[in-house]
Amino acid sequence: MAEQKATNITWHEGNVTREERAKGLGQKGGTLWMTGLSASGKSTIAVALEQVLLQRGKHAYRLDGDNIRMGLNKNLGFTAEDRAENIRRIGEVAKLFADAGMIAVTSFISPYRKDRDAVRALHDAAKIPFIEVHIDIPVEEAEKRDPKGLYKKARAAVAAGKGMGFTGVDDPYEAPEKAELAIRTDKVSIADAVLQLIDLLEKHGLLKA
Amino acid sequence: MAEQKATNITWHEGNVTREERAKGLGQKGGTLWMTGLSASGKSTIAVALEQVLLQRGKHAYRLDGDNIRMGLNKNLGFTAEDRAENIRRIGEVAKLFADAGMIAVTSFISPYRKDRDAVRALHDAAKIPFIEVHIDIPVEEAEKRDPKGLYKKARAAVAAGKGMGFTGVDDPYEAPEKAELAIRTDKVSIADAVLQLIDLLEKHGLLKA
Repeated sequence: MAEQKATNITWHEGNVTREERAKGLGQKGGTLWMTGLSASGKSTIAVALEQVLLQRGKHAYRLDGDNIRMGLNKNLGFTAEDRAENIRRIGEVAKLFADAGMIAVTSFISPYRKDRDAVRALHDAAKIPFIEVHIDIPVEEAEKRDPKGLYKKARAAVAAGKGMGFTGVDDPYEAPEKAELAIRTDKVSIADAVLQLIDLLEKHGLLKA
Repeated sequence: MAEQKATNITWHEGNVTREERAKGLGQKGGTLWMTGLSASGKSTIAVALEQVLLQRGKHAYRLDGDNIRMGLNKNLGFTAEDRAENIRRIGEVAKLFADAGMIAVTSFISPYRKDRDAVRALHDAAKIPFIEVHIDIPVEEAEKRDPKGLYKKARAAVAAGKGMGFTGVDDPYEAPEKAELAIRTDKVSIADAVLQLIDLLEKHGLLKA
């Protein structure tokens, strides 16, 4: 048994509220949901945004392929059903972070409007801010970048008559119709994109308690 | 488009680290995993602990039935497979919160040693603190409390030859063999339990940056 060092303790009946948690963090919780084609710049922008928020004493957490596909969603594949479940779970986890008072920043292609709208509805029902941002780039531009060679691979698969259900090549990307912001990443710098997102978070009241 | 208010922005290549996030929060991230019978006091202790941590300027988030079963895990039932997946997902989400720098406090019966050990292994592999606490009470005492009438219901089901796989009645509770702490909640007050947990978090270095 641990030796008891703390010597006084008081609490009231009932849970700590979302507002109290967020106040303790000096901000308001919410989800910033970035959607866009592969190679549009979602992850790069998310990484830069997280740094800038931390510099300003704000508390964000990025949900991305690295910490989701290898962990929580490692038992999901790429069937239509699994893709929907992938986004559903990410949406639920983002909502938990936002409920905790954090700014959840997601960077997934999340190509289907229906899936994104379901995540928005989850947040709306709980009165938690959901801010959808279209990281927008023409597919030709994304394909020129192709840092991981995925477009090339997808085109080759299609040419060989196989296909791989790759967004923008042989699977649709359904652009948001009611996104809070669209950023044309073939036209603005990463720095500008981050500035726009900081302004957006301010506008939605997330950066003060 | 939002009007740009922020006017300067710098970032370095690479992600914000776990250490930087936690430092910004004035603490270290980790998972405090409470396990124990229904009516042992897990949720009551978690609620009180969260309040005391907040009073001390620390940042915790409780994962419990209320925010998990209705959301992330609403597509899971009570088969053996679903119970394991339930705990796996909770473990992954707790790990994400801990990675974000938060103190994740879970309060689930989590009766099977194998499932809890898998969550511990997840954390160990990522070098994230995992602190297992047995909220320990003899089943007879828990059954006397029975605030939700669940034990009564389970006994009646067993008597009727049906059974409901209720932990401590007709499904086993596998007590931890290597828990960091055990608290006998039939012998100590909630205040004492919380003091012990605060001391434990201090001992593991989670309450300072």
